Amino acid sequence: MQQTIRIIGIDPGLRRTGWGVIDVSGSTLRFIASGTVKSDDKAALATRLCQLHDGLLAVLDQHRPEEAAVEQTFVNRDATATLKLGQARGIAMLVPARAGLRVAEYSPNAVKKAVIGVGHGEKAQIQMMVKVLMPRATFEGDDAADALAIAICHAHHRTSAPARIAAAS
Amino acid sequence: MQQTIRIIGIDPGLRRTGWGVIDVSGSTLRFIASGTVKSDDKAALATRLCQLHDGLLAVLDQHRPEEAAVEQTFVNRDATATLKLGQARGIAMLVPARAGLRVAEYSPNAVKKAVIGVGHGEKAQIQMMVKVLMPRATFEGDDAADALAIAICHAHHRTSAPARIAAAS
Repeated sequence: MQQTIRIIGIDPGLRRTGWGVIDVSGSTLRFIASGTVKSDDKAALATRLCQLHDGLLAVLDQHRPEEAAVEQTFVNRDATATLKLGQARGIAMLVPARAGLRVAEYSPNAVKKAVIGVGHGEKAQIQMMVKVLMPRATFEGDDAADALAIAICHAHHRTSAPARIAAAS
Repeated sequence: MQQTIRIIGIDPGLRRTGWGVIDVSGSTLRFIASGTVKSDDKAALATRLCQLHDGLLAVLDQHRPEEAAVEQTFVNRDATATLKLGQARGIAMLVPARAGLRVAEYSPNAVKKAVIGVGHGEKAQIQMMVKVLMPRATFEGDDAADALAIAICHAHHRTSAPARIAAAS
């Protein structure tokens, strides 16, 4: 009998951090839940980071994943946006790590390759393939769908490339 | 009798996060402690963020500051460095905020202006003025000295510009 592992994928963002939880058993994927943790963009930065922290902690408490995967943030040209994303990403990495989970990191291209077969593609294509791979999956918006794609990517790589996961744990 | 307020200044960095704790009573500044929380640059990012988190939490537990001030990170041209700094800065803001402290933010220029009178200057000049303002201050390295300067900056601004602090709390 195959062991079942529960994975959380996280797509970090200061305004909206997407999350998706799946169970993987051999090559079988099962959708558990997905959602978005939002921060109040009228609040101070420190308050917003607390909102992301507490929201993600509540998701871990509810769904009890055993491994985590976080997207390696696309580093864009706008330094202010990169700094904001970095601050949110720090929280997205910290929360599962403090809960004792291994935290793997995957590039956006690796995530796309895992769900649509190539390293580039539209948001709509990712959402469609998440539905093909897990027909029961539900998600509201891009962030939760991306987070599920990150979890699927980790499900594919966690056994085939243990060294990579070990390096990021 | 003047009320005494204990302030922690934090200079965030992924490799080294400086901290400095001072007491302010009216216009009197008193050095309490300073130091640097380091992360192991051979460890995975998630582990390093936990090291910064746990190190800062230990400092708060030991010195019990009542207000916090964090430097508004200089956004440089290198996006990868900015992202790293952002991740460390997320932790530096989160830890005092979760402990219930107000977290004020100050630009590097505001910090320099508070300790050396102008918005530009060398590291050595900042260290010298920290010693002039608080003769008993001790610090090892730039990060702890900068953190003390950030705390001094907050001591100057917390009463003269309450709106600014309120906006950043």
